[in-house]
Amino acid sequence: MKAKEMMDKEFIYVSKDDSIEKVSIKMEESKRFTAPVLDENMKLEGWITSFNITKGLREGKTLISEVMDPVENILSIKEDEAAKNTVIEISKHKLISVPIINDDNQVIGVSRSVDVVDSMSSLYDIKVSKIYKAMEKELRGVSWDELMEASAKISTRTTGVKITAEEYEKNIQKSTFGEAIWATGGLEKFFAGLISVGEIVIARKVGRARR
Amino acid sequence: MKAKEMMDKEFIYVSKDDSIEKVSIKMEESKRFTAPVLDENMKLEGWITSFNITKGLREGKTLISEVMDPVENILSIKEDEAAKNTVIEISKHKLISVPIINDDNQVIGVSRSVDVVDSMSSLYDIKVSKIYKAMEKELRGVSWDELMEASAKISTRTTGVKITAEEYEKNIQKSTFGEAIWATGGLEKFFAGLISVGEIVIARKVGRARR
Repeated sequence: MKAKEMMDKEFIYVSKDDSIEKVSIKMEESKRFTAPVLDENMKLEGWITSFNITKGLREGKTLISEVMDPVENILSIKEDEAAKNTVIEISKHKLISVPIINDDNQVIGVSRSVDVVDSMSSLYDIKVSKIYKAMEKELRGVSWDELMEASAKISTRTTGVKITAEEYEKNIQKSTFGEAIWATGGLEKFFAGLISVGEIVIARKVGRARR
Repeated sequence: MKAKEMMDKEFIYVSKDDSIEKVSIKMEESKRFTAPVLDENMKLEGWITSFNITKGLREGKTLISEVMDPVENILSIKEDEAAKNTVIEISKHKLISVPIINDDNQVIGVSRSVDVVDSMSSLYDIKVSKIYKAMEKELRGVSWDELMEASAKISTRTTGVKITAEEYEKNIQKSTFGEAIWATGGLEKFFAGLISVGEIVIARKVGRARR
């Protein structure tokens, strides 16, 4: 995934000659706490957050140019960089948003922390049953029912709560990868469970092949 | 993971009798775009964002009570709810933060979208080698070298680029789960690769046991 695929599609931008009052209304109406300050060629000249605005209003300033953060302080991400870099920068510097720029240094969008949450939670939202479908497809010669039986067995062993293959199947239709990770206590434990299931069904498959 | 484990530890809160000017300075200094308005028992009475502040300053209002969002419009999360619920609410309503409350309806913290990004990116940041360590531990009787050899084989087959077991081992020491998912093209494909590896080593293990 590239940086440009994880952007605020309705980002706002302002000019350094705009009045602070006008910009404050624009930010309130669009519900944006930050905005890049761009020149007529869409190049970055500065950065505005609600903090620059409240300070400017309090101190009786009038123009964005009087309150904006200078361009040299602004961290930006190139549109074709890995989206992961946006995540890392936002997380490391506790940023609420970063501008995304093209090769001509024009701002083409803004990635907000809420956009990152959106993208990441869609990963979490993959149904566990989809992972099992991938497993079934990969393990030619192992049936879906065998996978469910093995999983119910491992689940019963790990949790101490008896569960049937049918109940297990119902659970994974509903639950997501995110829920599974939180439920099992982490990514490695989730994998360990899947690997135990794999071990059972593969051992059976190998056994059948040797008969 | 519970909601209370994913909170802003330095959250700020204000009183409805505070002046807008004083609160605006507090928000600028602490770099917080939002704050719960609490009574003397830490119970929620309202909610403030930078938008309420800029509007108030522009319109010459003086007290927080004149500009705050009323308590009935505020979505909150109970401290013992799954952290996942915070993620879902922030993502669904594009919130920048939500208050976390205890059983007595007292606000004990605020979860911001940047806190969510932080927690989620720590999942992404797990080294792939850790997942392999879990695999090695689970698959008693399969050695680390066998895992690396099988993985190099699957990787060569999938990508068409020849890689040795040693090179593969070096790669997974550096790369994270997040990178692996982006590199393989998604969670299911990453799993499918791991399962193919599992199939090779388990088949060998079963073969040895039968000898």
